[in-house]
Amino acid sequence: MHALVTGGAGFIGSHLVDRLLARGDEVTAYDNLSTGQRRFLDQARSHPRFRFAEADTLDSARLTEACRGVDVVFHLAANADVRHGPDHPERDLAQNTIATFNVLEAMRKSGTRRIVFSSTGSVYGEPDLFPTPETAPFPLQTSLYGASKLAGEGLIEAYCESFGFQGYIFRFVSILGERYSHGHVFDFYGSLRRNPSQLSVLGNGKQRKSYLYVQDCLDAILLALDRADAAVNIFNLGTDEYCEVNDSIGWITSTLGLTPRVHYGGGERGWVGDSPFIFLDCGRIRALGWKPRLSIREGVIRTLDYLAGNPWLFEARS
Amino acid sequence: MHALVTGGAGFIGSHLVDRLLARGDEVTAYDNLSTGQRRFLDQARSHPRFRFAEADTLDSARLTEACRGVDVVFHLAANADVRHGPDHPERDLAQNTIATFNVLEAMRKSGTRRIVFSSTGSVYGEPDLFPTPETAPFPLQTSLYGASKLAGEGLIEAYCESFGFQGYIFRFVSILGERYSHGHVFDFYGSLRRNPSQLSVLGNGKQRKSYLYVQDCLDAILLALDRADAAVNIFNLGTDEYCEVNDSIGWITSTLGLTPRVHYGGGERGWVGDSPFIFLDCGRIRALGWKPRLSIREGVIRTLDYLAGNPWLFEARS
Repeated sequence: MHALVTGGAGFIGSHLVDRLLARGDEVTAYDNLSTGQRRFLDQARSHPRFRFAEADTLDSARLTEACRGVDVVFHLAANADVRHGPDHPERDLAQNTIATFNVLEAMRKSGTRRIVFSSTGSVYGEPDLFPTPETAPFPLQTSLYGASKLAGEGLIEAYCESFGFQGYIFRFVSILGERYSHGHVFDFYGSLRRNPSQLSVLGNGKQRKSYLYVQDCLDAILLALDRADAAVNIFNLGTDEYCEVNDSIGWITSTLGLTPRVHYGGGERGWVGDSPFIFLDCGRIRALGWKPRLSIREGVIRTLDYLAGNPWLFEARS
Repeated sequence: MHALVTGGAGFIGSHLVDRLLARGDEVTAYDNLSTGQRRFLDQARSHPRFRFAEADTLDSARLTEACRGVDVVFHLAANADVRHGPDHPERDLAQNTIATFNVLEAMRKSGTRRIVFSSTGSVYGEPDLFPTPETAPFPLQTSLYGASKLAGEGLIEAYCESFGFQGYIFRFVSILGERYSHGHVFDFYGSLRRNPSQLSVLGNGKQRKSYLYVQDCLDAILLALDRADAAVNIFNLGTDEYCEVNDSIGWITSTLGLTPRVHYGGGERGWVGDSPFIFLDCGRIRALGWKPRLSIREGVIRTLDYLAGNPWLFEARS
């Protein structure tokens, strides 16, 4: 099988590239390296079945070229910065919605019909139902990020109906693990690295969130591709648990042996559009035989180990 | 109040312009005249409180200029051609999704915070629940049109959360009445006008659809603006009834005194993405005190009267 992975140099994408190569697939990673890292592909690059296209998902010509002869597109490239959406609303529209349209058009032009899409639990907005199932009541969007991913989902579904595509849409909780370089564990670790005696927290620390370990996430995706065969296949991906931001702070500080003063920004939400409670019903993917191997706590600690061993991630940003 | 009506020269938009002028508002109609008609604004044009901007919703600079000093934007401009979506997928993306983003950005830049949006019952795809309420289970999109309107809804909701906008989203069934110039009554009438002895019908004629008379639709919108005051207000708009396409054919042919041979294309759906059953639960808008004055049958007959008196609509297209 020949797979194209957009965002293939990113956190999740580069792990997917490694997994696909390991199982014998031919893999093209497509990434503009705006947040992806060349180093994440060090292992892949030595592989004869691997190719890398340094290009943008807004470049339709390059995308169409990259889709040629491809059996499945894993479309993971995205602006994943939920928090700063309101500072540049056009970014979510362009990098998430329009980019997804470009991927679909590139596939249509090149005869590729199978797409996997990294959506988000944020499409549920602030639901009333927990754990939230895929069939939750028609949600209201509360973030530009969620809105842009919902638009991507809708486009994929319409392409399935209109052009005989087969779509796999995964609504992720936050993903953790090796190569993680964005999100609260990254921010907290980076802050404690600079100043071990204090920690600033957005919101009141009581936001309840779910997290999933990256290899568990990829297990689920590859299993679903193998076992689900509807035209449109939608799965929540998360653990059957959630934690408070404060729990996570406790795990982080005790793992690092630190006792910082914690300062809370206050309020139920960390930022505009932050969802104070994310907890997805993952019964649908579990019914296919999947279950996560790591708990949230284990995922957080695994991530800390990785960050501690890769200080360059912080140096690259400072 | 100063209202901007995008699509103000269109079927629904031009009636809205007339209604707003009649009640004392200042009105700017914004239309690129791609499907809108100058004649629909004949009455408005003589009014001192009326202005017309011939411009496109993809022209951000003109939009921003037009939003200045405006209290509410009625964003009705759209590509409303559901059926031919797959022939040019970029059209729904540009004219519905990106255009809606442009309207929101123009509003943000000019300090306008209230938006009314013409969405569609098509966002429910092919629901399992009839009549379909606003809180139906998270739908799957079955048309590029529906997907593009869903994307517009999500953007508006995110702007309400992110920037303090107030949004009114109306999910329409098909609208009928004077100035109607697109859809099945138009197509059937046009076809019988050319050849009264036969009629070709897409699908098996058993598709069940709902229709609403344009003035009833506008009553509902203006009432909701007056009485609903949440940040995001979503209303289905339709009648509490549906009909088969065959019922509609019966009303049309008997009104015209014709007995054409009817040829069915066959299949449950008239085209790819056609929903075989549209029937919306309008309890939410009814609870505000609204009810439609015309039945579907009365709306169809009113529309035929209008088409018979306005042959130029057919001549303009041939």
